[in-house]
Amino acid sequence: MKPVVVDAMGGDNAPSIVIEGVREAIDAGIPVELVGDPQIADDCGDIVLHAASEVIGMAEEPGRAVRNKKDSSIVRAAELVRDGHASAMVSAGNTGAVAAAALLRMKRIKGVSRPAIATTLPVPDRPPKILLDSGAMADCQPDWLQQFARMGSAFSQVRYELQTPRVGLVSIGEEPEKGNQLVKDTHRLLAEDKTINFIGNVEGRDVLSGDVDVLVADGFTGNVILKTLEGTVQFLVGEIIAALTSEAAASVGAEALGHLAPIAAELNPDAVGGAMLLGVNGVAIISHGSAGPTAILNACRVAKDMVERELVAELTSAVAD
Amino acid sequence: MKPVVVDAMGGDNAPSIVIEGVREAIDAGIPVELVGDPQIADDCGDIVLHAASEVIGMAEEPGRAVRNKKDSSIVRAAELVRDGHASAMVSAGNTGAVAAAALLRMKRIKGVSRPAIATTLPVPDRPPKILLDSGAMADCQPDWLQQFARMGSAFSQVRYELQTPRVGLVSIGEEPEKGNQLVKDTHRLLAEDKTINFIGNVEGRDVLSGDVDVLVADGFTGNVILKTLEGTVQFLVGEIIAALTSEAAASVGAEALGHLAPIAAELNPDAVGGAMLLGVNGVAIISHGSAGPTAILNACRVAKDMVERELVAELTSAVAD
Repeated sequence: MKPVVVDAMGGDNAPSIVIEGVREAIDAGIPVELVGDPQIADDCGDIVLHAASEVIGMAEEPGRAVRNKKDSSIVRAAELVRDGHASAMVSAGNTGAVAAAALLRMKRIKGVSRPAIATTLPVPDRPPKILLDSGAMADCQPDWLQQFARMGSAFSQVRYELQTPRVGLVSIGEEPEKGNQLVKDTHRLLAEDKTINFIGNVEGRDVLSGDVDVLVADGFTGNVILKTLEGTVQFLVGEIIAALTSEAAASVGAEALGHLAPIAAELNPDAVGGAMLLGVNGVAIISHGSAGPTAILNACRVAKDMVERELVAELTSAVAD
Repeated sequence: MKPVVVDAMGGDNAPSIVIEGVREAIDAGIPVELVGDPQIADDCGDIVLHAASEVIGMAEEPGRAVRNKKDSSIVRAAELVRDGHASAMVSAGNTGAVAAAALLRMKRIKGVSRPAIATTLPVPDRPPKILLDSGAMADCQPDWLQQFARMGSAFSQVRYELQTPRVGLVSIGEEPEKGNQLVKDTHRLLAEDKTINFIGNVEGRDVLSGDVDVLVADGFTGNVILKTLEGTVQFLVGEIIAALTSEAAASVGAEALGHLAPIAAELNPDAVGGAMLLGVNGVAIISHGSAGPTAILNACRVAKDMVERELVAELTSAVAD
């Protein structure tokens, strides 16, 4: 297959961590190339490096950055996919900029109104759930959310091999009449959509433990959910570590933490590699800004899988029905 | 002071748990009376019981239930406040019905466009944060959110005696231009509002650990945050208990759980008693449906405090400026 291109400049620990992850991916048999500042060529060793002289910062306004920095690593990566040199792109950089660059360079899948970011929620001991849109489109229309539902369902089938993923609409009550106007209007569209397995409204408390595979929300709500979830997990993990490393807990703390470590490991976003931008004409994966080498390796692995399983063709057919 | 009236029929464990909590409140010196089915009079002993023949169920559509069940305990409780018999009401029943009954019977504070539910987020070892609206109004306008900000700030001053509470607007990025249209428009209003200490946008990850005292959101977003937070805490607590009560952890599990118990205790919503409906002409507290006796006791205590500290007058002046 054609190589996956990885943005060497993206993420809080670029380029060293990214290069490390890419090296692991290549060692695992995945064809990967880098895009980034030519000055890092030495650090890349024998990994192919496509030159891009500019870097889009994590806090830059995405639309403006993509328009102005045409020779940035994010934009160049999207172009390498568009031009057929690469099969997929991976970046741990500015989420909005990756979405904008992919959208502008690769263009939308025919029939797709707006792209959505699909985030896999790592849940210990349970099948993974997908939340979309987790931040691409802050203001949405009901028919866009319907497409998100279809794309999320198709992605769940391709990525996690679920036969008929259960699709839930995020609301503030299970009854169809609960929610804001957008959700109530979307509920009607989803209830009539025969191409998905719509199970009705789900709530914030179902995000981790509910019997649902695909959670549909506008990008504002989805992003708030994701950040609340991450913040709560981080906060609790911090409190637990403080309690168990205190002097009072000295006799049991270390061993107890050992028993709790697997829970933290499974909730670690690095395990899933990154979020998937759905709706553009190519495979684009957005990794967490704090992604470690394992996250980059896993993102490359997922990118390869999604290319081989023809994700884009499946999404095209999902929205076309 | 005039008594606090408590809805005897509200909550998952009514009336027994409610009566138990009310008895504790009376023992603590708070004047409390009950409203509910005359058939429970024997269980109430010497506690005054105001008769109400109907009960609004937890899953009933709030507006319809309040219109149709005029002799329900929730509606009668609101009327006892309106008529000047009681100083405040407390219910662990249907949240929407309590909000609707309080709004229809007590009416709005002059100048208030819409009421909001202010929920206290219990955070271990830190000053409590207030989230509003946590579910009263799913679709909001910018000027309503501005009033929520003012009312939340005044409530934080009255309830937690913070001098200049830091008010944050929930969004998906710190920059003013981040968010959906509602949030962007609201940001401009709050930035110009000299009556509050607006610190800008905050994110889901700030809900527990951020340097902010009052989190402002529309009722849809606020409710999603609250449920996501509760669901995540519950899920993690379940996972931790499972890990530490497993055979593998037998030698340390029980003691380790003992060290973690204080964290769980502080995150327990019972500790704060309930959410406050802000913007109506009276003190109305909505307790969690799963409220235990301690939650009812604490709700009565907060109700008494808010009456004595003249919350309604403070809110009136906060929105009038």
